[in-house]
Amino acid sequence: MQGLMMDMPLLISGLIRHADRHHGATEIVSKTVEGGIHRYTYREAHTRARRLANALKKLGVRPYDRVATLAWNGFRHYEIYYAVAGSGAVIHTINPRLFPDQIAYIANHAEDKVVFYDTTFAPLIEKLKPQLKSVQHFIPLDASYEKLLENDDFEWPTFDENTAACLCYTSGTTGNPKGALYSHRSTMIHAYAAALPDTLNLSAREVVLPVVPMFHVNAWSLPYSCTLVGAKMVFPGPHLDGKSLHELFESEAVTMSAGVPTVWLGLLNYLKQNNLRFSTLKSTVIGGSACPPAMIRAFQDDYGVQVLHAWGMTEMSPLGTAGTLKAKQQKLGKEERYAIQNKQGRAIFGVDMRIVDENGNELPWDGKAFGNLEVRGPWVIKSYFKDEGGDPLHDGWFPTGDVCTIDPEGYIQITDRSKDVIKSGGEWISSIDLENIAVAHPAVAEAAVIGVKHPKWDERPVVVVVKKPGAEISKAELLEFYEGKIAKWWMPDDVIFVSDLPHTATGKLSKLTLRQQLKDFKLDTRQN
Amino acid sequence: MQGLMMDMPLLISGLIRHADRHHGATEIVSKTVEGGIHRYTYREAHTRARRLANALKKLGVRPYDRVATLAWNGFRHYEIYYAVAGSGAVIHTINPRLFPDQIAYIANHAEDKVVFYDTTFAPLIEKLKPQLKSVQHFIPLDASYEKLLENDDFEWPTFDENTAACLCYTSGTTGNPKGALYSHRSTMIHAYAAALPDTLNLSAREVVLPVVPMFHVNAWSLPYSCTLVGAKMVFPGPHLDGKSLHELFESEAVTMSAGVPTVWLGLLNYLKQNNLRFSTLKSTVIGGSACPPAMIRAFQDDYGVQVLHAWGMTEMSPLGTAGTLKAKQQKLGKEERYAIQNKQGRAIFGVDMRIVDENGNELPWDGKAFGNLEVRGPWVIKSYFKDEGGDPLHDGWFPTGDVCTIDPEGYIQITDRSKDVIKSGGEWISSIDLENIAVAHPAVAEAAVIGVKHPKWDERPVVVVVKKPGAEISKAELLEFYEGKIAKWWMPDDVIFVSDLPHTATGKLSKLTLRQQLKDFKLDTRQN
Repeated sequence: MQGLMMDMPLLISGLIRHADRHHGATEIVSKTVEGGIHRYTYREAHTRARRLANALKKLGVRPYDRVATLAWNGFRHYEIYYAVAGSGAVIHTINPRLFPDQIAYIANHAEDKVVFYDTTFAPLIEKLKPQLKSVQHFIPLDASYEKLLENDDFEWPTFDENTAACLCYTSGTTGNPKGALYSHRSTMIHAYAAALPDTLNLSAREVVLPVVPMFHVNAWSLPYSCTLVGAKMVFPGPHLDGKSLHELFESEAVTMSAGVPTVWLGLLNYLKQNNLRFSTLKSTVIGGSACPPAMIRAFQDDYGVQVLHAWGMTEMSPLGTAGTLKAKQQKLGKEERYAIQNKQGRAIFGVDMRIVDENGNELPWDGKAFGNLEVRGPWVIKSYFKDEGGDPLHDGWFPTGDVCTIDPEGYIQITDRSKDVIKSGGEWISSIDLENIAVAHPAVAEAAVIGVKHPKWDERPVVVVVKKPGAEISKAELLEFYEGKIAKWWMPDDVIFVSDLPHTATGKLSKLTLRQQLKDFKLDTRQN
Repeated sequence: MQGLMMDMPLLISGLIRHADRHHGATEIVSKTVEGGIHRYTYREAHTRARRLANALKKLGVRPYDRVATLAWNGFRHYEIYYAVAGSGAVIHTINPRLFPDQIAYIANHAEDKVVFYDTTFAPLIEKLKPQLKSVQHFIPLDASYEKLLENDDFEWPTFDENTAACLCYTSGTTGNPKGALYSHRSTMIHAYAAALPDTLNLSAREVVLPVVPMFHVNAWSLPYSCTLVGAKMVFPGPHLDGKSLHELFESEAVTMSAGVPTVWLGLLNYLKQNNLRFSTLKSTVIGGSACPPAMIRAFQDDYGVQVLHAWGMTEMSPLGTAGTLKAKQQKLGKEERYAIQNKQGRAIFGVDMRIVDENGNELPWDGKAFGNLEVRGPWVIKSYFKDEGGDPLHDGWFPTGDVCTIDPEGYIQITDRSKDVIKSGGEWISSIDLENIAVAHPAVAEAAVIGVKHPKWDERPVVVVVKKPGAEISKAELLEFYEGKIAKWWMPDDVIFVSDLPHTATGKLSKLTLRQQLKDFKLDTRQN
């Protein structure tokens, strides 16, 4: 028997309608591609989003059609988010930093019907056009776009909340990119969860600048969750250098931001070099890849900006964990609190997680055992777009491909990727831990640790090292550097010095390529 | 076409399972009926809730059966919340402060199968038993209850999230109480929304003491939303006097609380008389009835406790609005900020609202026009239990029965009840505004303003006044007191002095009875 509550589906259009009605005068500020500042309100954004929805209808966009963007964070991109999903079509945000062939593959796989693009990407679009067979309209975000916004006589349709809304492709290091197809329901529950005090802590009192791009898993929900709470939003456009960001933080009184470690490194360097500070910034979210402990300290100790260390993935919309403290942990000493913050955080309500060994047995949450991290929840995928790669689930759980520990309080610490962890004598060795130690040596510029076949132990670790220019270090010196920092049986069996390491298009170390390069390498197994 | 996300219904059992896994060591502390302190963890609460679910099954409780409680805020009441709803039955929390006849009516109307009761209410139960025909088991919350918790081999079932979960009756001032039947879905979306920074602002860093009873619209969601975020919970049992509350706030380091104005009045008086302060309390929610402006100032100015003024109703789970500021309002002067806080707040995301005139036309949000407040959203009822009273909706909106203004920023100010507002010459006069002025006169103990039929103006206001013991005031003096405080046409046409005013079982002024008492009263219309 059912409860007797109103049947109101959770639809993305409900966000911008609410912001219009209840936060109509709150601003959305954008630094444009040309460099000027554009500012308007949620009310105007809503009007323009409805006009765009009308235009999409006239262009022949129907429910479930995919509409792609190649665009920076800005007000027009924001309008496209709402116009497309709000009218029942699917917004497909493409990462312009991928190789052109990957972009073509993705757009063709998605069968995009319309592509909106910032003029920055006009040369790229010209190059790609001949390959994009499904696309009927290429629309630059300039006067051409403005011309579309003529008629605002549009009412958001009501439909099943499980309708597809957003398509994001993973930038996996292996194989072709695969698409995660979010629904209105998953996006909305995720947006509620994103705004919680223990997640991004969003309210109508915040001024939020998403540095994380809107083509990077929906900028971690900010275009949705900021709208949900009526926060003022500030979009940086393509201007992500330290100077531009700092100026925008200051001129718009930004209180909260979010981005990947790389961009914060640039900002912190700029601040230091110019002896600048933040006047209004109180907190920032760092995710996308593990945040270096020194960066957390720099923000908090040097600049008084609270860091939220978070973890997620495209397959989970993307938010999974956030590193806020619990009541009793607030009483801990500074170093103990930093030790917690250096981890990737604990599960947001809506996400459950577990770690399992190779045989799928659940491992204890003792902060020591490490296993494959698996997740489930209403904003986790059950399969990829077009069923690419078959059923990804394991016993109803999504295997993240990450290896981690979980401590008794539920905080995860990523120790490796499942495919990179080294299996030695039935036990696991973290390649990332061994790499972190190597790069801590002053003579090492970059290091990769891979497992190499061993007749007795199955696999043994080998360190592949790029020396710093002019620096010298021997195999024996590096292995000695490991002494006392790891269990004896974790000691790498060999050290290989190379002039450079292979990387993917998005700058990640490609251990797949490295393994292929070293496929004929043989360990000297006489000592073992 | 649907998105490809996991099909995970939003179920209440998911809350306590999550708290067990991710906040297992966090405490729930209860002051018992006997006065001692009971403490355990979310993990133990979850185990006991599952044991109770098993026991309910053995007692013959099936999905959709109603299980009632007559209980204070405590750990066993908390376990019943989860065991009943988690197993697919309906938890029906009864307000023990109602007249016994009303309780009997409600329990019979709900067809309660089991009644759990705190031993405080044993005499009441003995008296009611003969009338409660549907009840098969009366279980006191003592050793009898503990005996039920033997077997913990229970897995929460999975079912449709629209399944009924909780039944709360309105304590309306007219007619029989009517039931609001919440679903798992509505309760869960409401719990997410309740925890938001702009609503109750709940996190794992808070220690929350719900003074608002668990029989009063699910204690405003706190037993759900605190579990969602893993906040430590502190339950006061029946000990709601100033001294008991203050001691519990201090001994358990409570950071946040919630309750109705009456209970805060008792606490504030106790603090003042004993020259005490709060060491850890940072904020409190005040709702249930309009919070006197002086109370907000006392908490904030005298005790450094931030007040959240909120409004809601049983028919909306109950949260509707909360009075947090927006970014730009934080820069206002103190008096302007207090003027905003004195209003009942702005809509939480998930609630939309509008004000309409007698003909259903929407009125402007200018802070001046006042009309019938109507709401809609996924946690608002579409009909009452057993369709009592027929279709309550107006054009898809639920008419709250409140009359209010909405300002351009979306903050509502309740000015009257729809049935109490005085319609004079096609315009509306707020009975509450006129009452507030009357009670501000030092000689007035209590005042009620009602509309009395008038041949020309349809209705005109009359003030009915109870004088303070020993105080004197004439009709002319009171009317003079109104001068300059209201528009001329709002001036009451007459003043009636009485020795007391009629009240309902829950202590509210009964204007219905007053109108009946004065049905033969005639205005002297010679001057008009």
